[in-house]
Amino acid sequence: MTAETTSLDAYLEEHRERRLAAYLDFLRIPSISGIPDHAPDCRRAAEWLADQMRAAGAENVEVCETGGHPIVYGDRLHADGAPTVVVYGHYDVQPVDPIDEWETAPFEPFVADGRVVGRGAADDKGQVMLHVRALEAALATRGTLPVNVKYVFEGEEESSSVHLDAWLEANRERLAADLAVISDTGFFDGNRPAVTIGLRGVAALEVHVDGAPRDLHSGSFGGVVNNPLNALCEIVAALKGPDGRIRVPGFYDDVVPLADEDRAAFAALPFDEEAYRVATGVPALYGEVGYTTLERRGARPTLDLNGIWGGFQGAGGKTIIPASAHAKITCRLVADQDPDRITDLVRAYIEDVAPPGVSVRVDALGGGRPSLTPIEHPATRAAARAIEKTFGVTPLYIREGGSVPICASFESIVGLPVVLLGFANDDDHAHAPNESMVLANVETGIRTVVAYWDELAATGVEGLRTAG
Amino acid sequence: MTAETTSLDAYLEEHRERRLAAYLDFLRIPSISGIPDHAPDCRRAAEWLADQMRAAGAENVEVCETGGHPIVYGDRLHADGAPTVVVYGHYDVQPVDPIDEWETAPFEPFVADGRVVGRGAADDKGQVMLHVRALEAALATRGTLPVNVKYVFEGEEESSSVHLDAWLEANRERLAADLAVISDTGFFDGNRPAVTIGLRGVAALEVHVDGAPRDLHSGSFGGVVNNPLNALCEIVAALKGPDGRIRVPGFYDDVVPLADEDRAAFAALPFDEEAYRVATGVPALYGEVGYTTLERRGARPTLDLNGIWGGFQGAGGKTIIPASAHAKITCRLVADQDPDRITDLVRAYIEDVAPPGVSVRVDALGGGRPSLTPIEHPATRAAARAIEKTFGVTPLYIREGGSVPICASFESIVGLPVVLLGFANDDDHAHAPNESMVLANVETGIRTVVAYWDELAATGVEGLRTAG
Repeated sequence: MTAETTSLDAYLEEHRERRLAAYLDFLRIPSISGIPDHAPDCRRAAEWLADQMRAAGAENVEVCETGGHPIVYGDRLHADGAPTVVVYGHYDVQPVDPIDEWETAPFEPFVADGRVVGRGAADDKGQVMLHVRALEAALATRGTLPVNVKYVFEGEEESSSVHLDAWLEANRERLAADLAVISDTGFFDGNRPAVTIGLRGVAALEVHVDGAPRDLHSGSFGGVVNNPLNALCEIVAALKGPDGRIRVPGFYDDVVPLADEDRAAFAALPFDEEAYRVATGVPALYGEVGYTTLERRGARPTLDLNGIWGGFQGAGGKTIIPASAHAKITCRLVADQDPDRITDLVRAYIEDVAPPGVSVRVDALGGGRPSLTPIEHPATRAAARAIEKTFGVTPLYIREGGSVPICASFESIVGLPVVLLGFANDDDHAHAPNESMVLANVETGIRTVVAYWDELAATGVEGLRTAG
Repeated sequence: MTAETTSLDAYLEEHRERRLAAYLDFLRIPSISGIPDHAPDCRRAAEWLADQMRAAGAENVEVCETGGHPIVYGDRLHADGAPTVVVYGHYDVQPVDPIDEWETAPFEPFVADGRVVGRGAADDKGQVMLHVRALEAALATRGTLPVNVKYVFEGEEESSSVHLDAWLEANRERLAADLAVISDTGFFDGNRPAVTIGLRGVAALEVHVDGAPRDLHSGSFGGVVNNPLNALCEIVAALKGPDGRIRVPGFYDDVVPLADEDRAAFAALPFDEEAYRVATGVPALYGEVGYTTLERRGARPTLDLNGIWGGFQGAGGKTIIPASAHAKITCRLVADQDPDRITDLVRAYIEDVAPPGVSVRVDALGGGRPSLTPIEHPATRAAARAIEKTFGVTPLYIREGGSVPICASFESIVGLPVVLLGFANDDDHAHAPNESMVLANVETGIRTVVAYWDELAATGVEGLRTAG
């Protein structure tokens, strides 16, 4: 153990309480980007984060207007000749519905059983905080960073990052760098350290089915008009077959097929299917025929309803034919599917299969591209070495089922290779009630980021440009 | 015009304002039987109605406990040797969702364009009130009634009349009579006076589909677990075919087929299909192949969703696989379908078609039998004469699509023939936002009831027992 490591460890040990208190403060801000009423909370979270970054030693910190929730920028650019890294995370969180299923208040965080519990603990405030703390600890113990870092912390990741691309376009020069590090993913099942090499994209739609302009008495009108709720169910049912395959013509056209070596890599991952099923709590796993569970999650697209509503939902009965029915749909996409093309295909198919007697409208709610990054890239290898050093194990290389659509934005707009360095877990309940994060992952994550900056400095600008 | 009619007209004219004010007072009580929080309002409506009945001249008035919302009983039994009539109506109303679609507050009634507007105006408070006013006016102008009348005003008609049957059983002797008159139906399209000879029954169910015990991240879990919302849609879609027929095996077994003469009677009704479509506001009428619109409504069973819900319904997106999905279903039944048998058949079919990876539960929410009464019955003929006398036109004989399940209860428990004497209209928006009732129908309805008592007295007890 070097003196420097000792010094970093001592610093982290000394400031543990204060660091945790700040993390909990961050979680107390209900920065739900998808609900318009929470816009002031998103702004408050941005301002709070900017203050933390300034205190940690970031320079040029700015809460940037975007037309939506702001983006927090800050940098530390004193490592002449060393690589430059753009770090991305997001300070916004998912809504809390169904609120009844939270065991505690979602925005009153606490620590229990080694976990920080609260909305945003893992996705993504914990991961944003560990970057800020890595900056603080490195500067406090060494006075300098071995690389140049530019922080981009977004406030609309949970609402399709609607304003990010325009902001990246406008700030392309300011963001010039050698790579982007995105910390919004996780480890492999069982908290096994991992680097994510693939992410799914997403295409979101809303379907509206209208019948009469008002609810009708189900006795007086039942049998003579179509029912928008039944019609919506027929449309949704037509979208997938009993084999789990999506029936939309052309849907799979651009999917990169799994080669033998890809299937071998999936098969090599340690995975207990029955334990996973039990942990998930479903009566049986279920998916597209011809693929394993990990292949379905990492390499195959999906079509899922996220919400459905129409008519009477209260206690008791209400004998109506409701005026309208609604569903939110998201497709998870894999390389090389294009979200706009998928949205068009799904819309056209829905219009095609819609039954008579109702009118149907499909709204596009945005999307993001899928991403696939080579294991051999020197920045990926450097991340693996940093994880091995701090977590003490060789990381796995995984493809995540989730989406960080901004990967493609950093690649295509800013022109950066992207490394996904995330510390969450599948059982963190991201997007669900009782979200939490393993506190040890946050703490070791701070060390990993510091180690990663060292590995990148050792690789050097030229090394990062050389295929591994 | 006899002196007696003049006297009745004069009395009704003199008390018009007070009568209307009381009707509006009744509508102000939000007696929604299906929502537990409104139980005190139901009781308040019952007490208010009992006071009105006493003031009108009813005797033995009693607010009877049922275990649920009370039944209001009252009678006037001084016409020795004359027929005895049980009059049925209900003081409870439907919920007001979707509240956004009401143009005015549902429980702040008013008169506009010759209509009384407010929840319950037509279904069924207006019709209850006209019976009370007929009693009052007849006694005030003649001192006696030509028949004996027993009033049964229920408070759970909109919640499947769960306690009515037990109360009828317990009060069978008190309710001994020659016929039951039920005022909870309406006229034919275009406010054409009619006597209803057929009513549909109902069977209500709730379907619950569960996946994981909590919402799952649609990225991390999408493709590897079944989605309860998609699964529910598949179940619902499987219930009906593209021909509009219900696919549940055995569903149509007990349906009385339409004979040539029945189809001729339907065809003889004045009905402009395109005008009906425009008034309903749907892009096209839609239903079971092989039947006309009026046949579908009057003589064929249905399966309709009344509500569906699950997952995220707010503005924006929430990328989850929801834990559960729910739907309320009602089937309208025709003679001789049995609600319990239909419920069992639908439940068994749903369990049969449920896809893997989710668990499904079907709850029975109660039901009521369909009913079909001969045109030739002397009590039906007497009703037709009373309508002709007061409204000035020969009534049509129709089969209604709606349900008054208590018809079968009066038939089977109390052993009474049932006459459906109703004054509402299809465009009254019963069960929907902006419910209203044509005030002239209420006012002429009062006269019709008085005339009906005269016709029944002229028919006599023996005449009512003779097939017409």
